[in-house]
Amino acid sequence: MNPVRLEKLYETIKGGSADAAVITDPSDFFYLSGCKANAVMVLVPGSPVVFLSPVEYEECAAVLSGAFECRKMDRENLWLRVGELVKDRKCAVDPSRLSYTAYLGVKENLPSAVFIEDMVSGMRVVKDPEEIALIRKACGLAAAAVDGLDIGEWAGKTERQLCAHLVKRSWEDGASGPAFVPVVAAGPNSAYPHHEPGDRVIDDGWIKIDFGVVYRNYCSDLTRTYILDKFFSNLRTEELFENLSRAKQAAVDMLGPGVRCGDLHAAAKKVLDDCGLGEHFIHNLGHGVGIDIHEKPYLKPGAEQVLEEGMVVTVEPGIYIPGTGGMRIEDTYLIKSGGNEQLTRIYR
Amino acid sequence: MNPVRLEKLYETIKGGSADAAVITDPSDFFYLSGCKANAVMVLVPGSPVVFLSPVEYEECAAVLSGAFECRKMDRENLWLRVGELVKDRKCAVDPSRLSYTAYLGVKENLPSAVFIEDMVSGMRVVKDPEEIALIRKACGLAAAAVDGLDIGEWAGKTERQLCAHLVKRSWEDGASGPAFVPVVAAGPNSAYPHHEPGDRVIDDGWIKIDFGVVYRNYCSDLTRTYILDKFFSNLRTEELFENLSRAKQAAVDMLGPGVRCGDLHAAAKKVLDDCGLGEHFIHNLGHGVGIDIHEKPYLKPGAEQVLEEGMVVTVEPGIYIPGTGGMRIEDTYLIKSGGNEQLTRIYR
Repeated sequence: MNPVRLEKLYETIKGGSADAAVITDPSDFFYLSGCKANAVMVLVPGSPVVFLSPVEYEECAAVLSGAFECRKMDRENLWLRVGELVKDRKCAVDPSRLSYTAYLGVKENLPSAVFIEDMVSGMRVVKDPEEIALIRKACGLAAAAVDGLDIGEWAGKTERQLCAHLVKRSWEDGASGPAFVPVVAAGPNSAYPHHEPGDRVIDDGWIKIDFGVVYRNYCSDLTRTYILDKFFSNLRTEELFENLSRAKQAAVDMLGPGVRCGDLHAAAKKVLDDCGLGEHFIHNLGHGVGIDIHEKPYLKPGAEQVLEEGMVVTVEPGIYIPGTGGMRIEDTYLIKSGGNEQLTRIYR
Repeated sequence: MNPVRLEKLYETIKGGSADAAVITDPSDFFYLSGCKANAVMVLVPGSPVVFLSPVEYEECAAVLSGAFECRKMDRENLWLRVGELVKDRKCAVDPSRLSYTAYLGVKENLPSAVFIEDMVSGMRVVKDPEEIALIRKACGLAAAAVDGLDIGEWAGKTERQLCAHLVKRSWEDGASGPAFVPVVAAGPNSAYPHHEPGDRVIDDGWIKIDFGVVYRNYCSDLTRTYILDKFFSNLRTEELFENLSRAKQAAVDMLGPGVRCGDLHAAAKKVLDDCGLGEHFIHNLGHGVGIDIHEKPYLKPGAEQVLEEGMVVTVEPGIYIPGTGGMRIEDTYLIKSGGNEQLTRIYR
């Protein structure tokens, strides 16, 4: 339970002329309650209620029962029950976090619903010190696993063996596993941005590793490209890598409070365009990282959002040449007064 | 691309008086295309189109381009583009697979949409021989990892160390990692059905392990409870375990074509009720397993669905005593002529 965040949410919904709210997204629910669960939170002033699935009830009610009335969820009648609590209040609902089925429940049982986009996820964009400490820890664990690799030792082994090593480490080191299916892409497989580890032997060209972990419900994200051969498929590998590094650095040099997200994407893209690689940069430059591995803000073409202190974002330019291979370099950064701090590094 | 399944889908939508369909769910898309992607498939007779995100385009188009026209997805204008393809056809959409945002896109751009619940997931309930072979393999990998444990060797180690071992093995043995965050719950932690592995040392009472893997996009699921001490917290542990085993066996003895899902739940519940444990059985008896770890049919109270040959379901009664501990025993079964076959076992 986080009273400061709940208070801020009550202000947000007041601003939207609502006097109650329903939270349906598990990450939003965790942010407000400190409990990760498939739960539904009904905020009615003075008597907030949480509906928990029976399998999660005991574990969550132990944490929440001081601040919320905890009830066991009956999925069939969930929205009917929510409607009984909300009555004729103007109840805020986040349409971006709603399934169509839930929308039908809202329509039928909350006649005075007010749709507020990003009601809680908007609050989550700027991280507080407690959150930054957890993301830093998650970033350190990912960096210790990947930057700690002696990649030469992995030549002759397979993508899946290396992946197995990373996921094992993530649990052993204190994380709750990887934040997403790791990408371990050797040789030509690296041309696919999200290649799933398979049986290809790590022996030629370069290898791309995209890895992150979950630490106490917060994520981290980094990508490394290691060059195993100096020359590969007649492409000047090191030159490609250097151009990609320059593209990343161009964005990182600008990264700080007050900068438009779209301008960061454009800065990296320009470096790649100038050396003829722009067409191979086929995704966004980066994304926010927090309770979700991908969240706002998005560093994408044209994005108007302006960075603020306390935001956490990835910077990850990549180039992908079908049939040949691809490279990506990615770190997670904290936006701070005067600039930024790279969080994905080994802490000693 | 699976022409038999596509043909069957065209028949389904004809039965719903539609002459086109849009598929938005990644698992449904995989079932029809053989490609796992966040894609949108538009089935208009004679010229099916697939919208792929730019990062997945190369990898998927290589597989799909013979059978589908592949286009790069522009998320902002996706439903506008879908509408241009569908024109004034009656287009089938599955409401249970739709986000509210996607529903708005449908409403605006597909004026003649026809809602068909479980349009593709309904087809997925009965598995074909190719799918059964993959699920069998996934089940064998999970069983090899868990049933292959010498649990005595893990006394003194932590839940997370055992979890790390299981996830590493899943990748090394040929799976694409675990099908869900494994449950490794020692001592009193076992009272929580979905406890996440932590730092508790495996040393007293019993330990509950719920584990499954993904093999070529198909899942498996099993749970074991191992008794480490003969007596624990004044409860007769072995008697509890035996009663739970009898509850599972009561359902498995009935498990076969023609049986109502609700009757299976009731059979296990009755055994537990008769020995005074019914109140501690707080979840459904089981669920279907396939491309998704939880899919239809659900073995739950009152469920009218009748089992058919080729369905794959878990049977997993559990009892959870807050503050003390919990037990669950689970296997995955194939429904066959005359009965069933346990798939979660070590294959030699």
